[in-house]
Amino acid sequence: LNYPKFEVTILGCGSATPGAGRHPSAQALHHFQDVFLIDCGEGTQDRLKEFDVKWNRINQIFISHLHGDHIFGLPGLLSTFHLNRRERKIQIFSPTGLRGPLEFLLQTGGESLSFEIEWVELNHEGSKKVWESDRLEVEAIPLDHRISTYGYIFREKEHPRSILVEELSRFPKLNHLQLRSLKLGLDVHLESGENVPNALVTEKKLEARSYAYWSDTRYHSEYSTILSGMTTLYHEATFLDYLKDKAQLTYHSTAKEAAELAKLSHVKSLLIGHFSSRYASVMEHQKEAQQIFPQTFAVEEGKTYEVV
Amino acid sequence: LNYPKFEVTILGCGSATPGAGRHPSAQALHHFQDVFLIDCGEGTQDRLKEFDVKWNRINQIFISHLHGDHIFGLPGLLSTFHLNRRERKIQIFSPTGLRGPLEFLLQTGGESLSFEIEWVELNHEGSKKVWESDRLEVEAIPLDHRISTYGYIFREKEHPRSILVEELSRFPKLNHLQLRSLKLGLDVHLESGENVPNALVTEKKLEARSYAYWSDTRYHSEYSTILSGMTTLYHEATFLDYLKDKAQLTYHSTAKEAAELAKLSHVKSLLIGHFSSRYASVMEHQKEAQQIFPQTFAVEEGKTYEVV
Repeated sequence: LNYPKFEVTILGCGSATPGAGRHPSAQALHHFQDVFLIDCGEGTQDRLKEFDVKWNRINQIFISHLHGDHIFGLPGLLSTFHLNRRERKIQIFSPTGLRGPLEFLLQTGGESLSFEIEWVELNHEGSKKVWESDRLEVEAIPLDHRISTYGYIFREKEHPRSILVEELSRFPKLNHLQLRSLKLGLDVHLESGENVPNALVTEKKLEARSYAYWSDTRYHSEYSTILSGMTTLYHEATFLDYLKDKAQLTYHSTAKEAAELAKLSHVKSLLIGHFSSRYASVMEHQKEAQQIFPQTFAVEEGKTYEVV
Repeated sequence: LNYPKFEVTILGCGSATPGAGRHPSAQALHHFQDVFLIDCGEGTQDRLKEFDVKWNRINQIFISHLHGDHIFGLPGLLSTFHLNRRERKIQIFSPTGLRGPLEFLLQTGGESLSFEIEWVELNHEGSKKVWESDRLEVEAIPLDHRISTYGYIFREKEHPRSILVEELSRFPKLNHLQLRSLKLGLDVHLESGENVPNALVTEKKLEARSYAYWSDTRYHSEYSTILSGMTTLYHEATFLDYLKDKAQLTYHSTAKEAAELAKLSHVKSLLIGHFSSRYASVMEHQKEAQQIFPQTFAVEEGKTYEVV
């Protein structure tokens, strides 16, 4: 029994000032057949193409905040969808204030888009579920940056339970709907009056997985409450520990702080990114974080990381 | 006696739909120490960096029209100037309608820029001089595209005349100001009452050069009047001749049409670009044009072409 695909392709892991060969923030999160785009810095459409992401599967875009290095790829990507005659609606989640300038800018071309955009503008405190499908739900949580910023948690719903074939063979043959009920965790009552107890004939094989995107933000230990037990955390690590004052001042985090939060939250793995262009190599970021949280990966653009 | 630098670096020579490894429109025109940016498709700042253009010398940006593939790199470039703490004013020339959405979008970052933008919005008929320095003047001319579009002509002013040392030795020694007057083409009247006739002691060594940027537009033979005798013409050649109906319909040109115009205008060289992504190679464009106008170059990104 294998887990269905749940992995993230890094499209850009640089910060606002270009440099060091890194691009501004963007990620493609793959779950089953779906692709979710998280942030969309300039040139994201080029990277989607370069890294062979199936971008016609993108139906939701989640924007953390309205700094240019997280949004300036949106006009180009949406225009290209239009030139490709996309018809399916796209949903864009972001802090309030994106719709106006984006629509204004897209109008300069003199045409209306071939598809509808559903703008979901966020302006809430605390955690809030903003989207869900049969398989996944997405929460948006305010972070601590210079302007309104949201982190996103992508949480799998429960996987279907596995049938214990040998145990089930002791009961009369079940039909398709009855089997489905068992997989969903329900008992089945047969016409004969007999009961098929779920706990006896099924087992839980797959744990639900989760992915959190935490960028850009200052470090706060309190985030460990909401991140507790998550599978994979992506946390910004703009600076190294020796610049922790600068991180505080500019509302960013250090690699060490990202690792502290991962440790406090008992996540399984930590991805760090959003590196300042002053660092040509980020091996130091990885080392600094691994001293506190060994299962840390300093991400590289074009690489895909499994949510495990 | 050498000509001072006058050359153009191609940053992007693709059209609106991405593909074939080409990027959207942008060029860096170098003249003496100045760099002028012409159009600014998405990712232009990356290409400026990649091709080592001295972008802090850019003080003027000329935008042909407001389709996304000519402007979506502006927000990122201006933001990067800001992050680099640029203080010098920048002038942006474009058809009316760019300032509003750009300023709106740049405001989402929550900060005002470190430098001033002077917006020069164009809305005129016929040819109009929109900028000049001691050495160069720039005219904007309406083209024929789906939305308001301007071509730009960069015209050198007269170069200083060269002193004929032997001829001049027959006159008393001149001071610095008097020599400068001669180079500017003026006669010099000595205190003795003697006259130094300019035509006798100087000669014109360098012809003034000129560069025209003609994109995006339908072909019109009438443009040859204004382009007459220009040095180098850059003309869009989105399609090949077999798609001339499509070119007409979408307000674009073919390689053959670009060459026809170059021939009619008696320019010295023709650069063609803005190639449709349907063409993996543009050797056919070059061949088609060269049959009519031999001195044609199908441009390549990252290459620099002299204005000769």
